[in-house]
Amino acid sequence: MHHEEQHISKAFDRDLEAIQAQIMKMGGLVEAAIVDAAESLAMRDEDLAKKVVDGDKVIDELDFTVNEEAARTLAIRQPSAFDLRTVLSVIKISNNLERIGDYSKNMAKRTGVLVQMSPIEETGPAIRRMARAVEVMLKDALDAYVQRDPELAEDVRQRDLEVDQMYNSLFRNFLTYMMEDPRNITACMHLHFIAKNIERMGDHVTAIAEQVIYLSTGHIPEDPRPKGDRTAFETTGGH
Amino acid sequence: MHHEEQHISKAFDRDLEAIQAQIMKMGGLVEAAIVDAAESLAMRDEDLAKKVVDGDKVIDELDFTVNEEAARTLAIRQPSAFDLRTVLSVIKISNNLERIGDYSKNMAKRTGVLVQMSPIEETGPAIRRMARAVEVMLKDALDAYVQRDPELAEDVRQRDLEVDQMYNSLFRNFLTYMMEDPRNITACMHLHFIAKNIERMGDHVTAIAEQVIYLSTGHIPEDPRPKGDRTAFETTGGH
Repeated sequence: MHHEEQHISKAFDRDLEAIQAQIMKMGGLVEAAIVDAAESLAMRDEDLAKKVVDGDKVIDELDFTVNEEAARTLAIRQPSAFDLRTVLSVIKISNNLERIGDYSKNMAKRTGVLVQMSPIEETGPAIRRMARAVEVMLKDALDAYVQRDPELAEDVRQRDLEVDQMYNSLFRNFLTYMMEDPRNITACMHLHFIAKNIERMGDHVTAIAEQVIYLSTGHIPEDPRPKGDRTAFETTGGH
Repeated sequence: MHHEEQHISKAFDRDLEAIQAQIMKMGGLVEAAIVDAAESLAMRDEDLAKKVVDGDKVIDELDFTVNEEAARTLAIRQPSAFDLRTVLSVIKISNNLERIGDYSKNMAKRTGVLVQMSPIEETGPAIRRMARAVEVMLKDALDAYVQRDPELAEDVRQRDLEVDQMYNSLFRNFLTYMMEDPRNITACMHLHFIAKNIERMGDHVTAIAEQVIYLSTGHIPEDPRPKGDRTAFETTGGH
């Protein structure tokens, strides 16, 4: 019996490793999508934008595969409560990666529109910096997952505040540009969207980091992370 | 052996019913949150907005409970592949409900800001209509889930296109109001946010409807639903 349990457990480990390999592949593609989407915007590069939009299909397919494989593993291996938690986390992480991929695709789609308008000074590099910060967070969150490192995960979670602050600062800039010159309004509406999407990507990376903490400690972090998006309370100008 | 299997199956059914009852409770709270958030905005009712913001905690707690109960059921009952799919769907539906609750909370938070500004003509009622459409879609999606009715689910999925069209129309109005008078810019930025959040709620309702179709037919709808948000390609004015 003990021998059989070990056998089952090894088969489970093998399945889980295969699924985690898919997650890592997804992670790599999503990291590239974030960076390329921001780059396509900053460099007004429509070919690169198209590459991001087309590449999202592969990420979606990987998410679907992870879900199917995870369900199959649960059905065949009947894992223990602990292993079960791991599989459920994998499903959640895959779902978050898929959403970040979607946001990157949406960002890239707007490149085609924005190249038709005059560039808004300094926003390209600022958006690129924000995207890079999220990409590094994602890389660290996935490293924390592989190494089951709750401290690195907590560090990622805290860094999301910086992304929120970058967003707040951009939001104020957009308001200013629009008020200075109404011809900036359409471009700023699109750019604001992109900035908000990157801020949301940060939230999804945070959700991945929280799954790592949950896996290592058994509970979701208690103190809610202080939310840095203050624009819901922003009333600068235009009353 | 057969007798035991039946016993296990009944215990599983009981667990699943308990979890589905939580989902229905969540669904009711989320429907109310959508409507109340839009109402608080249209009526400039800060007390109602506060109720929505505070109430989101309960929705989050229900989501956590559903996840824990689902994991417990999987661990104890070792369900068949089919039952397993049902439990995984419940987790996904709960996650989508939690997200819709979050969007409602974010919408309500902005009521406090918007009451400090002059109202933008006709947008309150338009946003309320959009929120009502999403609320009815959600009600139908949950009915489709309970009745395992893939046709009703497909109908919900198609109706999301109307929500997308309402959003497109509002987006164009906001651009116009901002260009007409820069004093409208800040309010329109917030209102645009709200409209986009409602459009995203529609996407999450669609995801619930797709889970119902998956449960009934074994696969996610093949033809991607035509996306109705065309604003990524919008270049009206302001070049």
